Parts: sequence; C-alpha cells; structure tokens
Amino acid sequence: MKVLILAADGFEDTELICPMYRLKEAGFQVDIAAPEWGEIRGKHGYGVTANLTLDEVEPSAYRLLLLPGGKSPERLRIIPRVLDIARDFAARGKPIAAICHGPQILLSAGLIQGLTATCYHRISRELESAGVRYRDVEVNVDQNIITSREPGDIPAFMREIMKALENST
Amino acid sequence: MKVLILAADGFEDTELICPMYRLKEAGFQVDIAAPEWGEIRGKHGYGVTANLTLDEVEPSAYRLLLLPGGKSPERLRIIPRVLDIARDFAARGKPIAAICHGPQILLSAGLIQGLTATCYHRISRELESAGVRYRDVEVNVDQNIITSREPGDIPAFMREIMKALENST
Repeated sequence: MKVLILAADGFEDTELICPMYRLKEAGFQVDIAAPEWGEIRGKHGYGVTANLTLDEVEPSAYRLLLLPGGKSPERLRIIPRVLDIARDFAARGKPIAAICHGPQILLSAGLIQGLTATCYHRISRELESAGVRYRDVEVNVDQNIITSREPGDIPAFMREIMKALENST
Repeated sequence: MKVLILAADGFEDTELICPMYRLKEAGFQVDIAAPEWGEIRGKHGYGVTANLTLDEVEPSAYRLLLLPGGKSPERLRIIPRVLDIARDFAARGKPIAAICHGPQILLSAGLIQGLTATCYHRISRELESAGVRYRDVEVNVDQNIITSREPGDIPAFMREIMKALENST
C-alpha cells in the first residue's frame, strides 16, 4: 500500500507532514517525489527527504496522489513531468488530493476545469477564471478529486482521503 | 467527546498540530490549555489558540491528556496546577500521552517513576535517574501512559492513542 506526495522547497509544512504521518499511521508507505533527490524544506523550516525524483515515479504503483500547498505548487506546475504524473492518476481513476495552492497543479494539468473544487482563497479567482466552480468549504470532493483550502481544513481533508482510500484498490 | 492538550510557547509545532488535526478528524473537540488565554507559538512559528487557561480546566470532562514536546514542557512542569491536572487524569485511569520532552511533566508529577517509558533521547538520563525504565522505541505503553520520542514517531504514537480512546469511555 503506497501513496505519493509531490513537493518542492517552500511547501506548507503541516500540509505535507500531518497527512504524511496520518497515512503512515494507517499503514501506508509514503513516497515523496521532488525535482531532485534529497532534503526539501518547508516554509517553516521543516525538512523532509524526497526519496524519489520526479522521473523515478511509477504512478501505477500508488493508491493516492497528494499535493500539499505553500510555494511548492508554483514550482511544480511548470514541470511537464509533474503534470503527466497527475494526469496518469486521473486517467486511472485514482484519488488525487490537493490543498491550499495544490489545486494549481491540477489546473495546469487540465484536470479540474468544469468541476467543483476549493483552494486557498487568494487563488480562487485563478481557478474560477479557468472554469472551475469554486466552493468555499473545508473540503470538496468531485469525482476523484479532493480539495481543501488551508491547514485548518486538514481534519476534514484527511477524513475524505481516508474514505477514498477505503473505497479504492 | 473532548480531549485536552496542555502547552505553552515553544512547543514542538508538529507534535501539537498533527495530533490535534488527527483527533479532530476522529470527531473529538480539542481544547488547548496554557498558562494564559490566547495565542501560543511553536518553535517553528506556528500559532495556535489556547482556548482555556490552566485554572479553567475541568479534567473530568476529557477522555485524554496530550503533552507535546519542545520547550513547552519545561515551562509547564514548574506550575503546580499542571501537575495536579496530570495527576487527576492518572487517578481517573484516563489515557495520558506524552511525546519528546512531554514526559518531563509526568516525571515532575510523579506519575512514571517505576514504569517503562520513552522520551526524547537527550532527556533519557533524567528519566532513568528518577527510576523510569527507559525504552528506546517509537512508542511505549505502560498502564495508561503512552510515550514517544520525537516527531517521526507520531504515526505510532497516534495509533496507540486512537486505540486507547477506543478502549476508554
């Protein structure tokens, strides 16, 4: 049972670390992929080890894709390999969970246009302009895509993630 | 269903925030009590709101006492009211969970002498000198006391906390 987190320097620390611990608690192996192998650092100074580069990711091996927020998504959304990974999860009907600025990656990958979603309030306009039906709620689930606004939404975000993992294979 | 966290400025951010989110995910109301009402700040700069002062705490209302680490425990362990709250939970046989420097509070309250426990490695000598049987494990459960060493142990720590909450009333 493996899940994948895509992140880069500047991630919102609790949006990566709390879900990572929660998924480990439930028995999942959590792989973290970044542009380069090794330590990446969050906005608040926490370091986590990226044990995979983006090129090493084999999307079919994972049950879930998790996209934390902070400054990480704006670094990742311009990397074609990141968008391909997200599209691969979507094509397989696997759950994708994005919080805060994380939905920017899904937008660049063309995966949430026409769907309902939430995100960090400052980027809600960007999503709406692109045809996303923005909802100001702690968590939104549309098809296989789970979105939340900010760290305080993590309890609701994780509740829906755990539910999606129970219902998927 | 309520749980209580005791904390002060300098808490280890993830040791308070990740368990708080996890317990909220499971439907618990999480009260945070500190020496004064209002915002307390972690080592990494996260702020959380203490919604109760120590004097306002009614221990009988809670299912669990959680003691995060960092610099918070050394501030709390010298406050008699903190030790009385911990002793009240112990006397009622309620689960008490302490991570990192958190067990220092239990030591000052006289609650882990003679038991097995773990803690942040730099304070293991202090515990052993006081008659605690220190174990270098990710989580240790002895009677109603759950202890862990550091943030990376949070998955195992939360697994035992959730188990204790299921088994208690």
